[in-house]
Amino acid sequence: MSEQTSTVLPKGVTASEFNTAVEKFRALLGDDNVLVRNDQLTPYKKVMMPRDAAENAPSAAVTATTVEQVQGVVRICNEHKIPVWTISTGNNFGYGSAAPVERGQVVLDLKKMNRIISVDAELGTALVEPGVTYQQLYDYLEENDIPLMLSFSAPSAIAGPLGNTMDRGVGYTPYGEHFLMQCGMEVVLANGDVYRTGMGSVEGDNAWQVFKWGYGPTLDGMFTQANYGICTKMGFWLMPRPPVTKPFEIKFEDETDIADIVEFIRPLRLAQVIPNSVVIAGTLWEAATCDTRRVHYTTEPGATPDEILKQIQKDKDLGAWNVYACLYGTPEQVEVNFNIVKGALKQLGKGKLVTEEEAGGTQPFDYRAKLMTGVPNLQEFGLYNWRGGGGSMWFAPVSQARGSECDKQYALAKDILNKHGLDYVGEFIVGWRDMHHVIDVLYDRSNDEERKRAEACFNELLDEFEKRGYAVYRVNTQFQDRVAQSYGSTKRRLEHTLKRALDPNNILAPGKSGIDLNNDF
Amino acid sequence: MSEQTSTVLPKGVTASEFNTAVEKFRALLGDDNVLVRNDQLTPYKKVMMPRDAAENAPSAAVTATTVEQVQGVVRICNEHKIPVWTISTGNNFGYGSAAPVERGQVVLDLKKMNRIISVDAELGTALVEPGVTYQQLYDYLEENDIPLMLSFSAPSAIAGPLGNTMDRGVGYTPYGEHFLMQCGMEVVLANGDVYRTGMGSVEGDNAWQVFKWGYGPTLDGMFTQANYGICTKMGFWLMPRPPVTKPFEIKFEDETDIADIVEFIRPLRLAQVIPNSVVIAGTLWEAATCDTRRVHYTTEPGATPDEILKQIQKDKDLGAWNVYACLYGTPEQVEVNFNIVKGALKQLGKGKLVTEEEAGGTQPFDYRAKLMTGVPNLQEFGLYNWRGGGGSMWFAPVSQARGSECDKQYALAKDILNKHGLDYVGEFIVGWRDMHHVIDVLYDRSNDEERKRAEACFNELLDEFEKRGYAVYRVNTQFQDRVAQSYGSTKRRLEHTLKRALDPNNILAPGKSGIDLNNDF
Repeated sequence: MSEQTSTVLPKGVTASEFNTAVEKFRALLGDDNVLVRNDQLTPYKKVMMPRDAAENAPSAAVTATTVEQVQGVVRICNEHKIPVWTISTGNNFGYGSAAPVERGQVVLDLKKMNRIISVDAELGTALVEPGVTYQQLYDYLEENDIPLMLSFSAPSAIAGPLGNTMDRGVGYTPYGEHFLMQCGMEVVLANGDVYRTGMGSVEGDNAWQVFKWGYGPTLDGMFTQANYGICTKMGFWLMPRPPVTKPFEIKFEDETDIADIVEFIRPLRLAQVIPNSVVIAGTLWEAATCDTRRVHYTTEPGATPDEILKQIQKDKDLGAWNVYACLYGTPEQVEVNFNIVKGALKQLGKGKLVTEEEAGGTQPFDYRAKLMTGVPNLQEFGLYNWRGGGGSMWFAPVSQARGSECDKQYALAKDILNKHGLDYVGEFIVGWRDMHHVIDVLYDRSNDEERKRAEACFNELLDEFEKRGYAVYRVNTQFQDRVAQSYGSTKRRLEHTLKRALDPNNILAPGKSGIDLNNDF
Repeated sequence: MSEQTSTVLPKGVTASEFNTAVEKFRALLGDDNVLVRNDQLTPYKKVMMPRDAAENAPSAAVTATTVEQVQGVVRICNEHKIPVWTISTGNNFGYGSAAPVERGQVVLDLKKMNRIISVDAELGTALVEPGVTYQQLYDYLEENDIPLMLSFSAPSAIAGPLGNTMDRGVGYTPYGEHFLMQCGMEVVLANGDVYRTGMGSVEGDNAWQVFKWGYGPTLDGMFTQANYGICTKMGFWLMPRPPVTKPFEIKFEDETDIADIVEFIRPLRLAQVIPNSVVIAGTLWEAATCDTRRVHYTTEPGATPDEILKQIQKDKDLGAWNVYACLYGTPEQVEVNFNIVKGALKQLGKGKLVTEEEAGGTQPFDYRAKLMTGVPNLQEFGLYNWRGGGGSMWFAPVSQARGSECDKQYALAKDILNKHGLDYVGEFIVGWRDMHHVIDVLYDRSNDEERKRAEACFNELLDEFEKRGYAVYRVNTQFQDRVAQSYGSTKRRLEHTLKRALDPNNILAPGKSGIDLNNDF
């Protein structure tokens, strides 16, 4: 038994209680689906955050394949007060990967629940299970010749729509605000009930994937970035694949151009001339995703000097800011809209327009074009090679889509990062009325000193941004409680009231987004 | 004192307890803002539903002008277990108007809280209080030359964005799914807390009206069509007014055309060639809104015969179905999209296209064009004159935007209405992936026999649609508990768990959407 048993236990649970629960998991799920040995748990321990991985080590990982099994897991966890951390594909890189928020939680891995339940080619809808990846769905659409287009985050091939949407991730197409395009959820509650949102609970209904709100309170949002239930099915909308897609780039020479860029883009986005989630990516983002490593330029520690950034910009033919957008439609629609873009750019008087033909299949244009037209790829993982050493934290403050605001955020972030010897590797994305300002805090996790610097840097980013009224929309598990503080105590009190009502034993992912009944709210 | 006191009391509250509460209301709000005399309460008693108005009679109505006063009202209601029914502009016609769901509830009227707190012309956002009407906001935009366009329901001038959106109403522009375009709420909870959704609780934040979700669970939806809080501020998005708007109509001759129409429209809507919430309105809707009364054609009781419908269609130059859509953009964009519409219509091989120029300012084209371009009007109130007598209930089942489904719903609704001696006065609206099938069950409320028939008819509509898997998205207060049943007991159990947690004294609008702690869930 001893080698079969994890050395890590859930908080406040005795070894014997835990073992009893494990036996019940085995009876429910089969031995193969209950992992407790250290070597088996390795995939659930890897994190990119600065804190010691031991703080995120799970006590066990269990794999469910049906909704009934998920209900069974919840029942057992209630019986033994075992906290359970649910993952779908488990590839939430930079936000906590597959590891639980608190040491000792049992990982409930749903990657084997990977059925594409339905895709409606006419209505442009899909219903999937947690383990379905974007690549799987892409292949399904291709094989069945379904003229619908996916929208996904950059780790597209291995991530999935359910997990990404539940964490309110974004993508690069006109459907890039994924939670806005979500339609219908099935959720296992802590009491074991299987609750369907929207129209999903009407017997014989067929509108679950077409009408978001249903009747009475609309609760889909309550289950996102939260721990009030386990989502076992999710519906969402897919855009019809248009006759023509025309991705293009506009390169801007100077880092100070950011304010003008945002002012240039916003009216075009608001008027839907540019309908997709525009990206404004900094030099290092684009260089790093395409195999530029810091060691190619310097082995000095600390922040990379501006002269080197300029050199990289020149060597790789990049802008200080690289704007990616795409037009979709008939040839005539695309032509009219492209003329409007060109006209606005002429008025702006700066920025170099690059078309797909001009880019000629080169990177980073090529992978950006793929992201904007729904073709999965893994190019962006190149980011992790910039400094190497496996450290990455997304710092993602929300900004108004206003030039002066984006400029302020950029300057502040760069200052703080450089002060801590790290680089600004960032992009602005979405840009309808807000910008998700997404910065990859990259550092060498194998270097203790750098790890500590990165941690201090992230704390300072949170503090200084908060002082100016900026909060982040999403964060890795190490900082989820800290970020919850940015949003004030009234919100936390309400969230904990809901938690007490819905999950009195505090078994579902306690700590997620700072919601944990062990906190005093 | 006696003439000062209502003859109606809240359920389970003694006269003396009620009088104590009323005295506290007076101390808090001033005598003028506490109405208890029968004559003062008349505006809060008028309903269009079949049941006896006495069943909706309030015990009192109080008017708050500040958030602090709303908190005070909630405190007093908690102290004395007084149920409170909140209204904003109070013009929720056909869904319950200003009257509470249950006899004896105190109406909290927020129409005096009518500040337009902010409008951002660049970002296209607004933040308003409950009492702000669309007309007021329209005038504000005009007076300040702000190039933004409103989206509203048909009773536009007197209704308001906060109330309409909280009830998940829809409009006719590209922003017609109003709750989708909502961004940020301030809500007074039953415990007196003032909770802000999204970014609203971050100190010094300015992204409240640009980013919907915030961090952690997103709870805006929980407060819509529900009774978990009182919304005191709401943010939402406004569309930039485009250089050109081109409303148009397509008339279809036969009622059996509905399936083809929906199949024709859906791809154009999904591809955003037609970006607005399209309407497909039946003959009687268009005739009635424009002063055609039933008595002009017949004085026979019962359903209006098909021959008369055909005659009206001919006399008023209407289609059996009248499709209204609008294009927005630069002249070039509008031309390209109009050509696509014309091409698709040619392929369809039926339907008569009418442009604004061809309509020449006539009705119903003119009011439809106004609704699609954000100009408030009250034309649609003409519906109430079709039969007269003040009876109206919206029956609004959700349908897939699929021809066969809309056809089925239309035939079923017409059958049931005619069987009960009433007419199909309906339209389909929105039509991205779903259709809101909105039918005005019009009847003579002053005629007891007809009132009973209408009630039986509405019950049969609900029953027969439910048997086929169709549920409604919204309903008048008389039927809110009945409709909650269509969505099953798991959902109701969850909603009541939330109610117990958030409002243990059951003081906020008990009965709304069937949520009432006196129900056993």
